Amino acid sequence: MRDGAWMHALVERLYPLCRSITGDGVRATLDIIGEHIPLDRYEVPTGTQVFDWTVPQEWNIRDAWIADADGKRVVDFAESNLHVVGYSVPVSATMSLAELRPHLHTLPDRPSWVPYRTSYYSPAWGFCLAQETLDALPEGDYEVRIDSTLADGHLSYGEHVVPGQVADEVIVSCHICHPSLANDNLAGVAVAVALAKALVNPWYTYRFLFMPGTIGAITWLARNDVDRVKHGVVLACAGDRGDLTYKRSRRGDAEIDRVLAHVLRDRPHRILDFSPYGYDERQFCSPGFNLGVGSLTRTPYAGYPEYHTSADNPDFVSPAAMEDTLAVLREAFAVLDRNRRYTNLSPYGEPQLGKRGLYDSLGGRSDAKQAQMAMLWVLNLSDGDHDLLDITRRSGLEFDAVAAAADALRDAGLVAG
Amino acid sequence: MRDGAWMHALVERLYPLCRSITGDGVRATLDIIGEHIPLDRYEVPTGTQVFDWTVPQEWNIRDAWIADADGKRVVDFAESNLHVVGYSVPVSATMSLAELRPHLHTLPDRPSWVPYRTSYYSPAWGFCLAQETLDALPEGDYEVRIDSTLADGHLSYGEHVVPGQVADEVIVSCHICHPSLANDNLAGVAVAVALAKALVNPWYTYRFLFMPGTIGAITWLARNDVDRVKHGVVLACAGDRGDLTYKRSRRGDAEIDRVLAHVLRDRPHRILDFSPYGYDERQFCSPGFNLGVGSLTRTPYAGYPEYHTSADNPDFVSPAAMEDTLAVLREAFAVLDRNRRYTNLSPYGEPQLGKRGLYDSLGGRSDAKQAQMAMLWVLNLSDGDHDLLDITRRSGLEFDAVAAAADALRDAGLVAG
Amino acid sequence: MRDGAWMHALVERLYPLCRSITGDGVRATLDIIGEHIPLDRYEVPTGTQVFDWTVPQEWNIRDAWIADADGKRVVDFAESNLHVVGYSVPVSATMSLAELRPHLHTLPDRPSWVPYRTSYYSPAWGFCLAQETLDALPEGDYEVRIDSTLADGHLSYGEHVVPGQVADEVIVSCHICHPSLANDNLAGVAVAVALAKALVNPWYTYRFLFMPGTIGAITWLARNDVDRVKHGVVLACAGDRGDLTYKRSRRGDAEIDRVLAHVLRDRPHRILDFSPYGYDERQFCSPGFNLGVGSLTRTPYAGYPEYHTSADNPDFVSPAAMEDTLAVLREAFAVLDRNRRYTNLSPYGEPQLGKRGLYDSLGGRSDAKQAQMAMLWVLNLSDGDHDLLDITRRSGLEFDAVAAAADALRDAGLVAG
Repeated sequence: MRDGAWMHALVERLYPLCRSITGDGVRATLDIIGEHIPLDRYEVPTGTQVFDWTVPQEWNIRDAWIADADGKRVVDFAESNLHVVGYSVPVSATMSLAELRPHLHTLPDRPSWVPYRTSYYSPAWGFCLAQETLDALPEGDYEVRIDSTLADGHLSYGEHVVPGQVADEVIVSCHICHPSLANDNLAGVAVAVALAKALVNPWYTYRFLFMPGTIGAITWLARNDVDRVKHGVVLACAGDRGDLTYKRSRRGDAEIDRVLAHVLRDRPHRILDFSPYGYDERQFCSPGFNLGVGSLTRTPYAGYPEYHTSADNPDFVSPAAMEDTLAVLREAFAVLDRNRRYTNLSPYGEPQLGKRGLYDSLGGRSDAKQAQMAMLWVLNLSDGDHDLLDITRRSGLEFDAVAAAADALRDAGLVAG
Repeated sequence: MRDGAWMHALVERLYPLCRSITGDGVRATLDIIGEHIPLDRYEVPTGTQVFDWTVPQEWNIRDAWIADADGKRVVDFAESNLHVVGYSVPVSATMSLAELRPHLHTLPDRPSWVPYRTSYYSPAWGFCLAQETLDALPEGDYEVRIDSTLADGHLSYGEHVVPGQVADEVIVSCHICHPSLANDNLAGVAVAVALAKALVNPWYTYRFLFMPGTIGAITWLARNDVDRVKHGVVLACAGDRGDLTYKRSRRGDAEIDRVLAHVLRDRPHRILDFSPYGYDERQFCSPGFNLGVGSLTRTPYAGYPEYHTSADNPDFVSPAAMEDTLAVLREAFAVLDRNRRYTNLSPYGEPQLGKRGLYDSLGGRSDAKQAQMAMLWVLNLSDGDHDLLDITRRSGLEFDAVAAAADALRDAGLVAG
Repeated sequence: MRDGAWMHALVERLYPLCRSITGDGVRATLDIIGEHIPLDRYEVPTGTQVFDWTVPQEWNIRDAWIADADGKRVVDFAESNLHVVGYSVPVSATMSLAELRPHLHTLPDRPSWVPYRTSYYSPAWGFCLAQETLDALPEGDYEVRIDSTLADGHLSYGEHVVPGQVADEVIVSCHICHPSLANDNLAGVAVAVALAKALVNPWYTYRFLFMPGTIGAITWLARNDVDRVKHGVVLACAGDRGDLTYKRSRRGDAEIDRVLAHVLRDRPHRILDFSPYGYDERQFCSPGFNLGVGSLTRTPYAGYPEYHTSADNPDFVSPAAMEDTLAVLREAFAVLDRNRRYTNLSPYGEPQLGKRGLYDSLGGRSDAKQAQMAMLWVLNLSDGDHDLLDITRRSGLEFDAVAAAADALRDAGLVAG
C-alpha cells in the first residue's frame, strides 16, 4: 500500500473521534497511533502546575442534542462532534429559541458549514450548527441536553522515540486536540506516523510528540529537559492541496530553518518569518526557550476557508499532498542528519589529494570534476564557521556531493568533526 | 488661533531683527521667544575657550549704507539687514566704484535677490545687493559707511526645559544666528516654540536650545554634560512647502532615527544618511560625541534657490507647512516617549492570558483580535533585545496597539521595564 | 617604447621555453625576468617537505617525437613543447597506433588545436596533438621517443622586492610553470615585471613572486613568515581582450577587495566571490592562512576556449590589454598605499578650520567646496573604524580628494594615524 493511501486511511479512522485537550477521545487517538508506532504514554493529573498554567479538569461527553417541540433532534452530537462547543458544561433544560440563540454558533458566510468552537478555560456551553439549520428553526421551546462531565482526571499525551547515534534530539510535534477536523490536524498526525516509520538508524534521536495544543506543549516543556532539543518541526495542516509553507523559528536562522529553505528551494513553496501565533511553535519559540523549532504546513494556519469548519473533512486532504509533505520532511531530516561542521586538519595550503587517490592525476584539464570541487570547497571552508549546508550554498554544488566529499576527506584523515 | 497662524506671526515678528552669532539682535530674539515659553538665558564672555574654538568678540551694528555722489543711499542697511556682510568691521570712507567692487556681493543668476554673507572669523567688511542694483550704479565715487562695533562682550543663548519623568533628555536645537531669513531658521524657531508648548508631562525631559549656529552649539557642548542627552533633533527649514526630510544621526540606527522613519513612513518624505554638513548635527554628531541626534527639515540645507537670499522671506514659509512639521514632531516624541524595552517575566511558554482577562475565552475562532496579537508579539519579543518599535515593525501592527498591549501586560505583572 | 610593446616582446621571448614546475625552463625564464628586474633566486631540493607536500624530482626534457614507419616525425616536441605531456617519464619504444592511442591527447571539438596536459605526481607519459593530425595517422607501427629525465634536483623560484616605508608587505604572485601558453601566464609575468619597474618609493614593501603553481606557492608559504603579508594579488591571464575580472579573497571584504572594487568601478569589469579553484589564491586563501589576497585576471581561469591549448599563443594577448591590466594595478596600489585609518585628535565638535587656513573665510555661501567637504568627512569619520576608502564611499567624493584632505589635516595636527 502506498504511503498516501494508508495515511489517508489513518485520517479517516481517526476522524470520528471526539478529541479535546483532555479526555477519552485523546486516549483513543493515542491507542490508534500506537498500533502503528510504539508510544510512551503519559497522564498528567488535573491541577498540576505547568509554568503559568494548571492542567485543567478532564472533559468527557457522551451525548448532546437540541430537540424541537416534537422531540425531533435538530442538532445532534451523534452526527458530528463539531456540534458541541468543546469543554461545554452539562446542560439539561428547556428554553425558547431566543434564550438559546446566545449559545448557538454559525458561519453566516458559509451557511451549510458547521464551525468549530471551544471554551476550555471559561465555563460555558454551546452548540455549533449550519446557518441554514438555524434559519429553519421555528420559534418555540427547545429541549437542550449536553451529557458531559468536567471532573478531575488527566491530560494525556504520547511520545515515540527513534534512537539516534547521538543523544541530541530533533522533535516533531503535532497537536491531537481537534475533533473531526482532517487537515487540522489528522493529516499532520498521519504524516508524523509515516515519518517515524521511515527513519532508520538516524544520526539524531528523533522524538515524535502527540499532544494537545498549547496546554500539552506547555506541560511537555515543563516536564522535560529541553537542552537536548537541538532542532524541531511543528507539523500541522499537512494534507491540503496548497503549496508547502515553512514558518521559520523565532531565531530565523536556526539550522532547521536553513535545512528547510534548502530542501524547499526547487519546489513551489512559501517561507514565512516567525510570528507568535499558529501552533505549538508559539511555546517552543517562547523567549525563555527560543528553540530551533519551525513549523511546516501546506496552507498555513487559518489560511483556507475550510479552516476550523466541518468542511475540513477527509475529502479536503489528499494522499498525494501527504506524500509530498512526507517526502520533504524525509529529505530535510536526511540533510539535517548529515549536516556538520568539520575542521580542516591540514589547513596550510591545500593538502595533496593526489597522493591519497582523491585527485585526478592527469592535470591541465579544464573540466574540474564536481567531486574534486566539492573536496576543495569542504577543505577551504572547514574552519569551524561553516557547516556543509553553508558550503553547499556558497559552492552551488549539490548537498549530497558536498557531504560525500566531507565523508571522503574525513576517511582520509584530512577533516574532523 | 490655529498653530499655523501664530507660528507664522512669530516668524514675521522675528524677521526684521538683525541677528548674528552674537549681539543685541540675538538677545532681542530670545526676548520674544521668552514671551511664549520661559527661557534660561546664558551669556558667555568673549574669549572663553570652548574646545578648539574661542568665543569671538560681540558684533553690533547701528547703520550702514553706500551713498552716491548726490548723497542718495543706493544700498541701505535700514531697508534690509542682509545688505551688510555679517560681522563687518566699521568703515567710513569714500571710494570709487572700482575700489568698492571687491566688497560687493550679488547673485548674477538671480538679479533681483540679495544674498546673505558673513565673515565671522576673518576681519572684513562688505555689502550684499541685487545684481540689478549694482548694474545701475554709475562709475564714480561713493561714500561708504558701516557703523558697527566689534568688542568684547558675550555670546547669548537660551534654553527651555520641559521636565519629564526621567532625567534622560531629548534636545531640540535651532540656530538663531541668521538675520532676515524666514525658513532658515525662524520657521524652525516657531515650530520649536509650538512644540515646547504642546508637551505635557512627557516621559523624557525635553530641552529646547535656541543658539547661534556652530559656535553656539560648540559652546553649549563644552559647558554641559551631554551624557544625559539620549536623543535629539536639530530643527531647521521647517516652513517651506517641500516634503519633510529627515537626516539620520551619524549612528544611522539610533532610536531617534527609527522613530522618525516610523512616523514619516506614510507621508511623502525623504530620509538621508548623515553627512558632516548642514546644521548643528555636525557638532552633536562629531565623533567625540556621536549623539543620537538627527535633523528634521522640509527642503534640506541649500536645497532651494531661495536659500540664503532675500527671497527666503515670510512669504516663503507657510502656516500649513509649519503645522505639518509640528505634527510630525509631536507624533515622533509621543512614540519616543512610549518606546521601551520590556522583559517578559513569564518567558517559558506563553503565560495564560485568559485567567487574567486578557484573552477572548471562546477559542477556535479564526479571527485573532489585534489586541491579543499585540500581546503575543510583545510577550514573544520582550527579551531585552527588542523595543516596542522593533515589535511594531516585526508584527506589522500599529505602534499604539503594541504600546497598549505592553501597558496591559505590565499592569498584569507579565512584563517589566 | 610603450609598456604594451615591450611587455608583448617579453611574452614572445618567453614563449618558446619549455617550462614546468621544475627544470631548466623555469631557470631560463627567471634569467630573462632577471634582465628586467633584480631577482632573488631560490633552489629548493627535491624531497623537501613543504606542509602536506614534498618537492618532487626535477624534470628536464631534450627531445620527444613520434615517427611513422618511414621515420617521419608526425609529432615533434621541437615544433611545440605542448606536444609532450608535462613530467612524462622517458620512453623509447615501437608500438602500434592502437597501443599508442591511450597516450595521445587531442581536442576533438577544436581539431586543429593542441591541448596542454601534465602528470606531475603520477608517473606517466603521453603526447598532445591536433585531432586532425591524429585522424591522418595510418594504422601501423610508430617509433616513440621521449628523451626526458626525472631526477633529484630542485624547485626554482624568484622574488623581486621593492622596499617600502614600512615592512608590511603586498605580494604579487604569478605562476611560471606553464610552457608555451601566452595568456596563461606569460602576460601575467610581463605585467608583473612592468608593475615592479613602475613602483617608486611605495608605502608598503612590494614582493613579486615568480613561482611554479601550487607546489611553488606551497613551498614559498612553508619557507616564509606570512605575518608580514598584509595584502596581495595573484596575477594571471593578464593579456586577453576580455574585461578585467577581480576575484575576491576568501575574506570577501579584505582591504585589497575594497581597493580593487573601487578602482574597477568605472570600467567594464566583473567581480567574483572567492572559490577554491583557479590559481595560487587557493593556497594563500587556504583556511590556515586566509590572507587578504585576491586574484586579478582578464577573462578568468578556464573561461575562454583557447585556455590550455596551442591557441593561447602570443597573438591571443594584446599590448593594449596588458597596458590596461597594468594601469589598474598601478592605480590600485596607489590607493592601497594611501589608504589609512586616521584618528581625529579634536573630536569634540568640529575643530576651527578657519584659523588654520583650511576653511574659506567668507561664510554663508551655499556652494561648499569639495576640499572642505572632504576635510569635514575625514574629521567626522576618523574614529578608528573607517579608513579613507570607507570615507570615499560614504562621501561620494574622489579618493584623491579625501586622501589630500587627510594629508592636510595630518599636517595641521588635527588627525593622526
